[in-house]
Amino acid sequence: MKTWFHIPENSDFSIYNIPFGIFSTPSQSKKVGVAIGDYVLDISKAYDLGIFKSIDFPKSALEADYLNDFISLGKEITTKVRTIIQQELCNENSVLKTKKEAFIHQSEVEMHLPVLIGDYTDFYSSIEHATNVGKMFRDPENALLPNWKHIPVGYHGRSSSIIVSGKNIHRPKGQVLKPNTSQPVFEPSSRVDFELEMGYIIGKKTELGESVTTENAEDYIFGKVLFNDWSARDIQKWEYVPLGPFLAKNFASSISPWVVTLEALEPFRVGGPTQEPNVLPYLAYDGLKNFDIKLEVSIAPKNGDETVICKSNFKYMYWNMAQQIAHHTSNGCNLRVGDMMASGTISGKSEDSYGSMLELAWAGSKPLKLKNGEERKFIEDYDTVIMRGYCEKGGIRVGFGEVRSQLLPSK
Amino acid sequence: MKTWFHIPENSDFSIYNIPFGIFSTPSQSKKVGVAIGDYVLDISKAYDLGIFKSIDFPKSALEADYLNDFISLGKEITTKVRTIIQQELCNENSVLKTKKEAFIHQSEVEMHLPVLIGDYTDFYSSIEHATNVGKMFRDPENALLPNWKHIPVGYHGRSSSIIVSGKNIHRPKGQVLKPNTSQPVFEPSSRVDFELEMGYIIGKKTELGESVTTENAEDYIFGKVLFNDWSARDIQKWEYVPLGPFLAKNFASSISPWVVTLEALEPFRVGGPTQEPNVLPYLAYDGLKNFDIKLEVSIAPKNGDETVICKSNFKYMYWNMAQQIAHHTSNGCNLRVGDMMASGTISGKSEDSYGSMLELAWAGSKPLKLKNGEERKFIEDYDTVIMRGYCEKGGIRVGFGEVRSQLLPSK
Repeated sequence: MKTWFHIPENSDFSIYNIPFGIFSTPSQSKKVGVAIGDYVLDISKAYDLGIFKSIDFPKSALEADYLNDFISLGKEITTKVRTIIQQELCNENSVLKTKKEAFIHQSEVEMHLPVLIGDYTDFYSSIEHATNVGKMFRDPENALLPNWKHIPVGYHGRSSSIIVSGKNIHRPKGQVLKPNTSQPVFEPSSRVDFELEMGYIIGKKTELGESVTTENAEDYIFGKVLFNDWSARDIQKWEYVPLGPFLAKNFASSISPWVVTLEALEPFRVGGPTQEPNVLPYLAYDGLKNFDIKLEVSIAPKNGDETVICKSNFKYMYWNMAQQIAHHTSNGCNLRVGDMMASGTISGKSEDSYGSMLELAWAGSKPLKLKNGEERKFIEDYDTVIMRGYCEKGGIRVGFGEVRSQLLPSK
Repeated sequence: MKTWFHIPENSDFSIYNIPFGIFSTPSQSKKVGVAIGDYVLDISKAYDLGIFKSIDFPKSALEADYLNDFISLGKEITTKVRTIIQQELCNENSVLKTKKEAFIHQSEVEMHLPVLIGDYTDFYSSIEHATNVGKMFRDPENALLPNWKHIPVGYHGRSSSIIVSGKNIHRPKGQVLKPNTSQPVFEPSSRVDFELEMGYIIGKKTELGESVTTENAEDYIFGKVLFNDWSARDIQKWEYVPLGPFLAKNFASSISPWVVTLEALEPFRVGGPTQEPNVLPYLAYDGLKNFDIKLEVSIAPKNGDETVICKSNFKYMYWNMAQQIAHHTSNGCNLRVGDMMASGTISGKSEDSYGSMLELAWAGSKPLKLKNGEERKFIEDYDTVIMRGYCEKGGIRVGFGEVRSQLLPSK
């Protein structure tokens, strides 16, 4: 595909991508936009030019605070919208070419949370991550729990505190139990961590009592974002038995603003790890259901340069998204448009591919060196954590941009 | 208070109650209503008569699919609305007396989910329940985990599958590990259980990073409902380590349709159990923060009479709602109007006050007898589970009505 629009080399937002997001400008309230190169295309302006006249949907779906109404139109409509935009950006005679005000430089817009999230589920689907955590906190010889290879383990998280890239957070306070004591104290967490994850947004609802097969599951995924599942390890350790993590996680999760559609990721499908022992029939699947998405995490200390501390890949996931959805609905639990599912920390086999400080610095025993000479066991006040991700194959690049948040001191 | 409206003796919906809900009729779409005796008062019709003219709010808050807009007006408005309705129902010269069509018999309305629930959190705040579960599954000598008396333990649940009383559910399927095997199977749960809980609905939002004190916490509670936290014990046992219950719970939770305001519960305040050891300062509280709410659970088998199998009381809760909210926001986690919090199973000290089949039939070892001679270890297909609750003191009765759901066979 060759576009008449100027797209810088190595842009995440190539003509092959066309991700959707919610933007505003000082003079315009929230709207649906598409990222292209360094610009945002205001699709409602494109709508006014009549480029979508072959498909029937109301403009109100584009002049909205969230993508939910647009996504609810269904893939029949939304994939056509995406394809038409791609075609127009390649068509030398497109009316869009004459409509400069439909393109706004990304530096001039504010990006917002793309969807109103109903429920948020976090999985735990990287075998390397689950093994690392098991080695550190349980038994190095039996690091994986007995259910792990049978169940794509997941739990419900908090949707109210999912925030968009650029919003900063405060170090949470909470109950922690100090070593060799029996009485907890309430104080700012001293073990704030990130978790490198990817989220996906449900694009099609199910009814209560309905189950989705692995074969059909991807029809229910609108697209994906980068996901930083902020965690307070000391709070987690004291609170999590027996009902799971709660305040250790729900103080914030940060996501990237542009939702990359599953269609844009199509060229980057790969096979997943062998699943041994065999999974139960409702979790079995055919075809390539993993995606080769290169991921990295950087820390930028206050007034310092970024240091890349992790390089991982979404393709390492032991359990894929289709299996997660089949499992999630296997008991009849219903999905709604805008629900967020996250992968769990994405760690690889090598030590520099671990997706959390907990693993990278091995519970504080192997501090990481930053470029400015400082060391890190966990995240310190004023550190900015930045996650980036992109696919690349045969000269085609489809990227996610970034999710970044700074950790401010406790309030 | 003496009302001109006919209210049957022992009605849950006395002049002292005035709970809010969402109803529809065959000819009218969803609206806000108030329960009074055997009737629903259509408040939008009362609005048209001008009885709320002393307070300023839009009628659209009453012509809505959910109570969220109404609740978002704030207690300054909503408590005045409630008080005005009470006064008009006592005023012999009220215009309401001439407006018969504003009152619809409850048999002629359909009740709906009262709020659009953002996030749902389930606590675990009954010491008797936590102790019973600990005795059965862990160590009878050390039944409570070390964190239990320090933390109002809670976890996030699923809001999409919270349904209103009267909606029936299907027995969920899921992975279970049979005794003396190492490979799980996927089949209909054979241990479906209820949990007798009460829910409360958040009425005032907080910002991310903000914490609420126990002193102010009740300002954030709009009102309460009965809550049946359906559970599949066999699925739960296999899946819940290490991240907590997931598919064992998220197939359905049932709630009563009428939201009883905290103001209506004011006369029924009582002190709670002594908390020993002392709680951390952010969880300490003054005054009476428990409520004397009598609760009972019945099972009605197919074509059979109801048998009351549990009589409990909300006043048994070790951790109160103010402590739950203070804890939930202690890390800065934000609350939204419409969020649902549930108490956890409400068990008392006596064996007939346990709030789940798991405890009542002690993991299947002591089956319960029903009136028709049948026995129950867990809930069987076509059983209807009914929960009721009310407060009574000095001739004043304020009740919750009921929450009922039938368990249908697996799909």
